Amino acid sequence: MAKSWSTEPSEALRVRAGFDLASADLAATPGWEHGEKSAEKRLAADGVHLGEEQERLFAQGRSGGTRSVLLVLQGMDTAGKGGIVRHVLGLVDPQGVQLRSFGVPTEKERAQHYLQRIREALPAPGHIGVFDRSHYEDVLVVRVNQLVPREVWEPRYDEINAFEQEVVDSGTVIVKVALLVSVAEQKARLRERLERPDKYWKFNPGDIDERAKWPLYQEAYQAVLDRTSTDHAPWYAVPADNKWYARLAVGRLLRGALEGLDPEWPPADFDVAAETARLDAQPF
Amino acid sequence: MAKSWSTEPSEALRVRAGFDLASADLAATPGWEHGEKSAEKRLAADGVHLGEEQERLFAQGRSGGTRSVLLVLQGMDTAGKGGIVRHVLGLVDPQGVQLRSFGVPTEKERAQHYLQRIREALPAPGHIGVFDRSHYEDVLVVRVNQLVPREVWEPRYDEINAFEQEVVDSGTVIVKVALLVSVAEQKARLRERLERPDKYWKFNPGDIDERAKWPLYQEAYQAVLDRTSTDHAPWYAVPADNKWYARLAVGRLLRGALEGLDPEWPPADFDVAAETARLDAQPF
Repeated sequence: MAKSWSTEPSEALRVRAGFDLASADLAATPGWEHGEKSAEKRLAADGVHLGEEQERLFAQGRSGGTRSVLLVLQGMDTAGKGGIVRHVLGLVDPQGVQLRSFGVPTEKERAQHYLQRIREALPAPGHIGVFDRSHYEDVLVVRVNQLVPREVWEPRYDEINAFEQEVVDSGTVIVKVALLVSVAEQKARLRERLERPDKYWKFNPGDIDERAKWPLYQEAYQAVLDRTSTDHAPWYAVPADNKWYARLAVGRLLRGALEGLDPEWPPADFDVAAETARLDAQPF
Repeated sequence: MAKSWSTEPSEALRVRAGFDLASADLAATPGWEHGEKSAEKRLAADGVHLGEEQERLFAQGRSGGTRSVLLVLQGMDTAGKGGIVRHVLGLVDPQGVQLRSFGVPTEKERAQHYLQRIREALPAPGHIGVFDRSHYEDVLVVRVNQLVPREVWEPRYDEINAFEQEVVDSGTVIVKVALLVSVAEQKARLRERLERPDKYWKFNPGDIDERAKWPLYQEAYQAVLDRTSTDHAPWYAVPADNKWYARLAVGRLLRGALEGLDPEWPPADFDVAAETARLDAQPF
């Protein structure tokens, strides 16, 4: 029997008014008191449930259902977004997952509204969509580096809230995860990328330039959490200095989102007896 | 220690001149003499290797590499294509997999060359692409149902060979898998879909109509295997009446394709010492 949460992450990690990023303990494991070994078992068990719910959601999607789930992953470099994809989304049928990474916008993307590429990547009915970075980059990297003036990025918070309301109204449950790594842990992880030849490919000199702006990023993240953690699309602040905890927590949040939808097997849209008779009548 | 193949599937299942579909034993387990339980362990072990090779391939793709792998899955309804995706591709990082299902062409797709939608779905560098059905439908369902006249589909075999040569020349290893289910086993699997409410969504009355044309499909599959199993992109005929065997074999073929590429970790394209010094110089 896998061990249980003392407080569900949907409660323990939900960003509410007054959340203060600067004072958050990023090595903590809110709601989980059983350590790493037990966490692996819990995640594996949650993965089985997740897989079952996901298949029902997928079946719904194939049968005219309109529901879907969107997991938004935000975090500084090395926060562990890729690990979440591998270790949490890796637990469900790849057929039901639509993964999209958002890098620096292409020239074509820059020419259009910043939400356009987001709209085009929204999950199809029946699917779990995953955004590795997202429209929030347009109020994070863009704000920190002043890629557009304040009067352009400032209205985006409200615009994003309205956009997400629209997405939710169309049948998508949005789970927004801020993977929060401490500045010291980030240094250790970047150093590892510089020490291990099998990690070189993950390193980019630009990562160090961005890291120099850490206080500005903290401010920008705080603003995101203050202004876009809504009832329809709340943020979850996930302490990520322990990778195992972050994976455990996101797996649980995703399971919760699927269970909230509680998809049922779609009924037959054909005459079962008649089709059985047709099959039986075939000579081979 | 996981048990071993007596003959590698790349040898045992490769379609060579003279392969006769009608006389193939589709409940056989060529090259594997250890039964189902051992097969699960073997697949899990192969999955670990597959995951490691896949990560190196992905790293290469991120660092300017041009290599990729394309797994083409063909088979009659119920042959187990979806199960391969779930149980074999589910073993690797979702980030490195590009899955594409080819259904009935859309109006837009019908207006263009039949290979156009295929070209657009080819895997990006560093990725494992998976085609659930493929351009072969244009000489299978299209031929059987005479959706275009013979003088249109007849030249497609050569055209497909030339197209695949081009894809291979651009750096993609192609693994073509024909999942071969017997007509009796297909009947049993369709009946299951009619008996179990959690399987209804997989059933389509059209499946029974297509099944009525089984001999024509056999003929069309035989022609595909005769005419498009080339040195640059061979077919593997995978007996699929035992789902566990098909998964084991495809996992092994995929592992072999990755190992053949033998991707190495890309070297640093930056000055490691200089970047380490920059990182250490940061105040936090």
